[in-house]
Amino acid sequence: MKNSSIPAAPKGFLFSTVEAAIKKPGKKDMALIFSETEAVMAGAFTTNSVKAAPVRICMKQIGSGTGRAIIVNSGNANACSGRQGLRDARDTCGAAARRLGISASLVYPCSTGVIGTPLPMERILPAADTLAGKIGTANLIDVAQAIMTTDTFPKMVHRKVRVNGRTGVISGICKGAGMIAPRMATMLCFIVTDIAVDRQTLSALVKDSVGHSFNRITIDGDMSTNDTVLVMANGLAGNRPLTRNAAGFDAFKEVFNSVMYDLSLLVVRDGEGATKLIEVLVRGARNEADAEKAAFAIANSSLVKTAIYGNDANWGRIMCSLGYSGARFSEEKTDIYFNRVKVVKAGLTNNKDAEATVELRSNEVRITVDLHAGKASAKVLTCDLTEDYIRINAEYRT
Amino acid sequence: MKNSSIPAAPKGFLFSTVEAAIKKPGKKDMALIFSETEAVMAGAFTTNSVKAAPVRICMKQIGSGTGRAIIVNSGNANACSGRQGLRDARDTCGAAARRLGISASLVYPCSTGVIGTPLPMERILPAADTLAGKIGTANLIDVAQAIMTTDTFPKMVHRKVRVNGRTGVISGICKGAGMIAPRMATMLCFIVTDIAVDRQTLSALVKDSVGHSFNRITIDGDMSTNDTVLVMANGLAGNRPLTRNAAGFDAFKEVFNSVMYDLSLLVVRDGEGATKLIEVLVRGARNEADAEKAAFAIANSSLVKTAIYGNDANWGRIMCSLGYSGARFSEEKTDIYFNRVKVVKAGLTNNKDAEATVELRSNEVRITVDLHAGKASAKVLTCDLTEDYIRINAEYRT
Repeated sequence: MKNSSIPAAPKGFLFSTVEAAIKKPGKKDMALIFSETEAVMAGAFTTNSVKAAPVRICMKQIGSGTGRAIIVNSGNANACSGRQGLRDARDTCGAAARRLGISASLVYPCSTGVIGTPLPMERILPAADTLAGKIGTANLIDVAQAIMTTDTFPKMVHRKVRVNGRTGVISGICKGAGMIAPRMATMLCFIVTDIAVDRQTLSALVKDSVGHSFNRITIDGDMSTNDTVLVMANGLAGNRPLTRNAAGFDAFKEVFNSVMYDLSLLVVRDGEGATKLIEVLVRGARNEADAEKAAFAIANSSLVKTAIYGNDANWGRIMCSLGYSGARFSEEKTDIYFNRVKVVKAGLTNNKDAEATVELRSNEVRITVDLHAGKASAKVLTCDLTEDYIRINAEYRT
Repeated sequence: MKNSSIPAAPKGFLFSTVEAAIKKPGKKDMALIFSETEAVMAGAFTTNSVKAAPVRICMKQIGSGTGRAIIVNSGNANACSGRQGLRDARDTCGAAARRLGISASLVYPCSTGVIGTPLPMERILPAADTLAGKIGTANLIDVAQAIMTTDTFPKMVHRKVRVNGRTGVISGICKGAGMIAPRMATMLCFIVTDIAVDRQTLSALVKDSVGHSFNRITIDGDMSTNDTVLVMANGLAGNRPLTRNAAGFDAFKEVFNSVMYDLSLLVVRDGEGATKLIEVLVRGARNEADAEKAAFAIANSSLVKTAIYGNDANWGRIMCSLGYSGARFSEEKTDIYFNRVKVVKAGLTNNKDAEATVELRSNEVRITVDLHAGKASAKVLTCDLTEDYIRINAEYRT
């Protein structure tokens, strides 16, 4: 890895950012990602039935499997905005496309921020034009900065990958800190790579990879209207396009998955008001669905999260969450650990609360539950719940 | 209604309380409710698969449909306590029963408090004996006080009811402030009446009534291991036992339901750290299941609850919750109100956020959602989410 402040972007991707006065003055709030050549594109989107206008447009365009640019604004989600919202998103793409000299259908719109307020088009349209005009003047980290809302730091991961004698780069950025829940979060994630990947292969890879990264994190159990992952692969590394069975695909997949996972980890680390990262590992479940249910019930429990915040080895709240999770298990067989300290042995206290309390003082806590009911496991990442989460969300729009 | 501090209890019920040093010194933490004659009994219990020992015993005994006494402790839930927990609960009933001169199977045990710590039987057994010995020395409100954990006030409701020329009383107490979620909360509720009611009729009434009271409240979405509703009807009012089709049953049912509902309302009013009562009414749903899903999604959303706390008319979070609720509806048809202010009209902002913000300053807020998809409705009660909820639950065991 190179210097992380100004990373080596994959070949042929250019960036720009601008201040369009959507957020408070002095903050960049629009950005453009542009590929010099047509890129293969794949995406994953929120499963919330209330989808923001830009999400609906992306879902439609992604069917083509190709694209040239992503235009994004923060500070306004363009959600619950009706037909006007759809028009606004399309017009924004159009303004950038005209200046870039490409078709508007190759520009993917994304928005994040407050729901239900119309976009300030009088500022956004000229900003879109400006972004296209100054493309190449910013780095990917500047884009990461421009898409932040309640995030406290920009989130970026980049990795080199060698495929069939060619060296490429996978770079990803994302934003998200609240309204984060299973099945895609209030979350935007853009990944660009110069490795050539076949369309269907990239599409399948993204779906699979999301299942083990962004779909396995939760901050507050609220699933947003705008969650979007977009991946662009422009092929400028010069390799033969990777298909599922091609030599080199497994190496690419491994690096790609690690980028996705590390980005999702950054979201949880930046959980609104969070002081601790919590990893919930449920093993010994009858099947993966049961393991997931159990892990999410624990990771979404306000009582578990406040106990961890208070350094309280209150494992009863974990057992309680398991009990309403819907997972099949026997209380009498269940073991629970905080880090390596086994606090529950076969459903009963192991009298290790004092040792466990010491473990909880760390800013990374691993809760391991062994149900002894089978061989499946699932891991979910979350964070503690603190007074600052309340403060941030009680004052969000003020 | 009489003076609420020392209410008229229904005939033939006696009470006592004692300090057994389970909670911090100076606090009553055990209580006994006793009927001078055998009472018809019915109950409702947590659906959490991890059930506390006393819940398991109550569920078994309630099959008989009769009982004489309820013995309860606060400060320790006797949950996740294995076989020892079951023995402890039975021994506690036995100690009271011996002194009362009745069968132990007519005594119903209840516990609430910390999970996973064995009961201090060396103090509980003599306390159970003492409670029986001093039966009749306390009022129902004293019992309400003795079962409190994080509750900030004792919860009691009592109503007169006239059935077929006889006057009776229905009195209820309950406790609960956190770990409160749909399908029964961390919640104990005891209702006693001198009206005579047929066994099957009482059992059916309790199930139905819970569905519109305790199963329609949520504080933090955590469903507990100990939730218990027990109802005793000893018949000393002298009426002919009420059956479902008897004259007088509807009058009794109405009062009974109001007692149950008002008790559940008190639980929400005392929600941990809460500053506001929030009533979520979803109407115009395709069916009741959809209305319930939608109402609970809103009522359980941390983001909606923090926005209300912050007097922020952020209706986008309500729309977002509807979107992941699983209810069938069209965003384009949905109206949303804060109290009487219509903030969303047909899915779009109605530009009334300023008026709505004024409404939110009240300590009771009604969110009404009209889905315009059908005729079904559901109401769920909840409270706002504040820094104090975090403080209370981060420090619960310390």
